[in-house]
Amino acid sequence: MDASSTGDFTTRLGAIAAETQGLLDRLLGETPEPGEIARPPRLVAAMRHAVLGGGKRLRPFLLVESAALFGVRQDGALLAGAALECVHGYSLVHDDLPAMDNDDLRRGRPTVHKAFDEATAILAGDALLTLAFDLIARAQVHSAPAVRVALSLELARAAGLGGMAGGQMLDLAAEGRFDGKHALSQAEIATLQAMKTGALIRFACRAGAILGEAAPDALASLDRFGVAIGQAFQIADDLLDVEGDTATLGKAAHKDAAAGKATLVAALGVAGAHERLADLVGEAEAALMSFGPKADILRVAARFIAERRS
Amino acid sequence: MDASSTGDFTTRLGAIAAETQGLLDRLLGETPEPGEIARPPRLVAAMRHAVLGGGKRLRPFLLVESAALFGVRQDGALLAGAALECVHGYSLVHDDLPAMDNDDLRRGRPTVHKAFDEATAILAGDALLTLAFDLIARAQVHSAPAVRVALSLELARAAGLGGMAGGQMLDLAAEGRFDGKHALSQAEIATLQAMKTGALIRFACRAGAILGEAAPDALASLDRFGVAIGQAFQIADDLLDVEGDTATLGKAAHKDAAAGKATLVAALGVAGAHERLADLVGEAEAALMSFGPKADILRVAARFIAERRS
Repeated sequence: MDASSTGDFTTRLGAIAAETQGLLDRLLGETPEPGEIARPPRLVAAMRHAVLGGGKRLRPFLLVESAALFGVRQDGALLAGAALECVHGYSLVHDDLPAMDNDDLRRGRPTVHKAFDEATAILAGDALLTLAFDLIARAQVHSAPAVRVALSLELARAAGLGGMAGGQMLDLAAEGRFDGKHALSQAEIATLQAMKTGALIRFACRAGAILGEAAPDALASLDRFGVAIGQAFQIADDLLDVEGDTATLGKAAHKDAAAGKATLVAALGVAGAHERLADLVGEAEAALMSFGPKADILRVAARFIAERRS
Repeated sequence: MDASSTGDFTTRLGAIAAETQGLLDRLLGETPEPGEIARPPRLVAAMRHAVLGGGKRLRPFLLVESAALFGVRQDGALLAGAALECVHGYSLVHDDLPAMDNDDLRRGRPTVHKAFDEATAILAGDALLTLAFDLIARAQVHSAPAVRVALSLELARAAGLGGMAGGQMLDLAAEGRFDGKHALSQAEIATLQAMKTGALIRFACRAGAILGEAAPDALASLDRFGVAIGQAFQIADDLLDVEGDTATLGKAAHKDAAAGKATLVAALGVAGAHERLADLVGEAEAALMSFGPKADILRVAARFIAERRS
């Protein structure tokens, strides 16, 4: 991994973020699509607030670059990536609600329920989740309906009861919301995180292989890569909470630690967590072995995810 | 329309309701499906509370019976109907939330946020909406991926920003939630209702034709039927609120009228609304002309929807 690969990575991450932003901007206009009756301006505005406020667009990057391993044309992968950003955005809007994590700020701006109101935030999240399944079913994603329906089914499983939404439920339960605080085992923390944040990152990588109509062993390789970087992403996030300062993060540091949140950093200690991160980067790189140098940008991405400072 | 068609209709409505209940019961177990990591029991319980508490299952009935016009086998249509019930169920859970309509009772039982809590209700709604797109993408719905992806796209458009979720947004706005109460024109009320309740009923009828790989004119006929009965459903609902008593309805009567809610009954008067209902039943029946006697059960359904007393 030389300086030029790192430069390539930074350039590509920025380019895909810009493309995703432009695409979401065009998709979230006030003109109804066929089959829609009207788009209420207030709901459009709240959805735009939720998904056009920035972010690294890491999930679309992983999807587009995984698909590129199989020579998939970028426009279809970008649209699937935009669908994934809608799911990610909806989850942030609902998680921020007063009845959930009750956060007023997100990426330095008011959360949707602060900028608008709670009812609008609930509906904006609902409509973003629904839009994701609209986008991923569109013919522009891939010419083969079998590919689109496979993506849609996998996205639903990754986002729903047995994935992201279920993970948020486990997180609230662990906080003691329902019947007292539970001390989670390392295995339980791993399950919670695999669901809450891991599932969508894993989906992003698998989706590239599905778009590429990859052979089963190539899909399995990207699955292993996705699982490893999903875990790395969460440990890096938990380390940032412990080691970061509020100025660098742009959000409150030490919040999870103060809340006594169940994290692998709490379970492994800071040094143990850094070791585990290095192991996960190794696993992610090993998973990409069969792709050779064309997977270099994903290898740099794995390091970036593990080492990021914000 | 003789007594025997009405008997057939009542029997079929009950049979499809029972099948739908059994199917949802089996689908909402605690064992994860492939691609799911774990199903948190509390979230499963809240989702079950939301969709297993009864209801006429009118949308699955319309979907299954529309599909039957084209000789579609019932198990695929029932699974698509179960997906539609998940969308309907999610919308009730979120609409009942304190930040939305703030209802404590639904079908004589506590609403999900009363039986559980607000955070669980938000997540249960989210997970039901997501599950709908899981179910409708399954191979058991139809052997052709193109059919499943078409259903999924139409369901997303019917349920989202330009359909049901958008309709709820317009309804909250009309109540004066954001910038004062608006007197809506008849056209605006019609748009609101076509989105909030009409879109899913219309989808149910269109979905039957899509499952049946119907010719464009047959799809257009079922579309017209779905639009007419969707309007009839809402007017009948609004008339029930004005004419019904609480004992018969099982919920508070005169609630919408007391809230000064924008309805076509308020705009047309009770007698005018009854006339409009009769016209809509005529339109619905006319739309089914080309199907001959095999559509009799849908003709009875149109009358049932217009004349129901609860």
